[in-house]
Amino acid sequence: MVTIAVLGYGTVGSGVVEVLEKNKDSINKKAGKQIRLKYVLDRKEFKDNPINARLTHDIEDILNDDEVQVIAEVMGGVEPAYTFVKKALLKGKSVVTSNKELVAKHGAELLKIAKEENINFLFEASVGGGIPIIRPLNQSLTADEIYQITGILNGTTNYILTKMSEEGLDFDSVLKEAQDLGYAERNPEADVEGHDACRKIAILSSLAFGMHVDYKDIYTEGITKISDRDMVYAKQIGCDIKLLATSKKIDDKVYAVVAPIMIGNDHPLSNVNGVFNAIFVKGNVIGDVMFYGKGAGKLPTASAVVADIVDAVKHLGTNIISFWSKKKMKMMSIDEVPAKYFIRVKRDEESKAIINKIFGFVHVVYSGYEDEIAFITEEEKEGELQEKVKALQEDTEVLNVIRVEK
Amino acid sequence: MVTIAVLGYGTVGSGVVEVLEKNKDSINKKAGKQIRLKYVLDRKEFKDNPINARLTHDIEDILNDDEVQVIAEVMGGVEPAYTFVKKALLKGKSVVTSNKELVAKHGAELLKIAKEENINFLFEASVGGGIPIIRPLNQSLTADEIYQITGILNGTTNYILTKMSEEGLDFDSVLKEAQDLGYAERNPEADVEGHDACRKIAILSSLAFGMHVDYKDIYTEGITKISDRDMVYAKQIGCDIKLLATSKKIDDKVYAVVAPIMIGNDHPLSNVNGVFNAIFVKGNVIGDVMFYGKGAGKLPTASAVVADIVDAVKHLGTNIISFWSKKKMKMMSIDEVPAKYFIRVKRDEESKAIINKIFGFVHVVYSGYEDEIAFITEEEKEGELQEKVKALQEDTEVLNVIRVEK
Repeated sequence: MVTIAVLGYGTVGSGVVEVLEKNKDSINKKAGKQIRLKYVLDRKEFKDNPINARLTHDIEDILNDDEVQVIAEVMGGVEPAYTFVKKALLKGKSVVTSNKELVAKHGAELLKIAKEENINFLFEASVGGGIPIIRPLNQSLTADEIYQITGILNGTTNYILTKMSEEGLDFDSVLKEAQDLGYAERNPEADVEGHDACRKIAILSSLAFGMHVDYKDIYTEGITKISDRDMVYAKQIGCDIKLLATSKKIDDKVYAVVAPIMIGNDHPLSNVNGVFNAIFVKGNVIGDVMFYGKGAGKLPTASAVVADIVDAVKHLGTNIISFWSKKKMKMMSIDEVPAKYFIRVKRDEESKAIINKIFGFVHVVYSGYEDEIAFITEEEKEGELQEKVKALQEDTEVLNVIRVEK
Repeated sequence: MVTIAVLGYGTVGSGVVEVLEKNKDSINKKAGKQIRLKYVLDRKEFKDNPINARLTHDIEDILNDDEVQVIAEVMGGVEPAYTFVKKALLKGKSVVTSNKELVAKHGAELLKIAKEENINFLFEASVGGGIPIIRPLNQSLTADEIYQITGILNGTTNYILTKMSEEGLDFDSVLKEAQDLGYAERNPEADVEGHDACRKIAILSSLAFGMHVDYKDIYTEGITKISDRDMVYAKQIGCDIKLLATSKKIDDKVYAVVAPIMIGNDHPLSNVNGVFNAIFVKGNVIGDVMFYGKGAGKLPTASAVVADIVDAVKHLGTNIISFWSKKKMKMMSIDEVPAKYFIRVKRDEESKAIINKIFGFVHVVYSGYEDEIAFITEEEKEGELQEKVKALQEDTEVLNVIRVEK
């Protein structure tokens, strides 16, 4: 028998308790041992809830109980999660977590402690909710050198973009609807500004490339500027607009970008709709692989947390090797990254001439909107494109700029 | 250092040797030990090929060499692979294989021997080529009870169906083109009649449900009867035709079917095109997840074989638990499975009346072909639908029957 504790009894925490109970027999069989939940840590009281029998408000109860060998941290946020997790690992307890802020910020250090203590720090649920991606990256794609990861890593923004695309609605009304349905937070900034996806691609890149990719070094753009008109243009050129988080290794450098992209309809990621997430991985042997599923939600996330608990129980006293050194990965400036831009400007008598003067040959995109001109540039380095956009802004009104991958 | 041997120097075997050399440093790092290839077994000679230094024609050289701890079997076919693998396992050597015939037929027994010997029998490459699916099923989806697996498991047939759908060509001309391009064998029966997909879904089902699903018990239908007209009708109803291998658990019984299916365009599997494969899994907690990638080919398959070698090296002396008892799974008769049929009959004065008499209300599908009538039935048990098709055949000419999932 292995004794465990769960830190946090919110959405994910209550899901973890539910799943452990629901699939008890098969989980114990797969873990090879019986799993016994002894503690749930939460600040709140839960009136008339059987969880009360296991509830504690004091982390020390758990840290000082030698019976506890595995802890699931599902509180979210950097503190106090970081302090609790570090203490637990130093006490020789394996920790599994769904906390992307914690992993993106302190993953390298916590993995190192787990290795030194010969226990495990696992975080499958921190990226892609229920989708198995951390374990496949670590344990399945071992024959490959991974050189690119591109993901739809945020369900809220994908829901919003899908609705905008399918129903021709504008951003604000879809956001409001998503908030009413509980798919978006009342304060949606972390999702719609791309910060959530940024932390997740930082975690995936660090794991895939074996060195620390700091989320603060990742160029991040959200979807708030995407309009219903942009969706019309995207369809016109056989694309969908998705918030893509990409990181790519070129020689010994990595670039990482989170931004809305017009992506061709023949790409598997363009068919990932609604609250679903997907992660597209390129390896130098395997070619392209993709992992698809629900990227958030109580039960899918709990599924990944419990799978990590099972793995931690199976590997008590054996560190499952992870390659994520504390050494910072060399990042390529976004200015150096090749890109193509879709650009819309207000139409007047001179706009065509101005565009041609600055960009030379461009592909004009027709849409039926008489008050604007839209075009796609040739591929150039982002730095040069940005310079040209600046020049364009001096002479005309630029309505939007979106990257194109097609 | 861990010493290994490769059995078979054909397409996959030479790929394995190539990958071990190409990504040597990262592979050794992930394995935690240096991997040394000592033997390659093949009947042939390879003139002026550096592999000759490691070539042997006698399996006993490998079996009797105590240095060899891991063997990759990539010969294909049941014999002599089965005899070689069994002997190797009984000698305490871990075995990894890409051989679906071997795994579908003897997987349960070989897994049992590996468990008794405290070594490993791994077969990631036997299903879905490079796509990580066996390890995720075994190690990632452990919190779930899997109740359904549906896959596009054969690249050759998916290539043919994609070409037919995109270019309006008939089966025979696309098959010929696929043969010329090397995507289909000169004797294409194993692929186009569904036997290959049948063995693969047998393996996945056995693993997911923990009991032996015999491939001989799986209802299997190929794609040879699919015509260009069927593709036109499929598009008409918002579907694509795919060769799907499905197994589903209902209570303590399983049904498994391999057949061409008209599947709705909003299903992620309908967007899996060309030689790509994908496996769609449903769990009682995680919901839907999908794994996508190249299902065949030298390097993708070698990627999975080498990943298994790395896992075997990391787990020398530790059996990674697999649940696949020799006990036969109770199979549900296909007659009991609910289905909807798309049916085309030759049009004459009476055909409409005959259809209505036998099927009652049906959904007619219009196509512009004046010489036939096509319709979709209501959902009924396959047994009852088959009876009705028989009755229909007595009174009119039935041109084709295809299952519909939409």
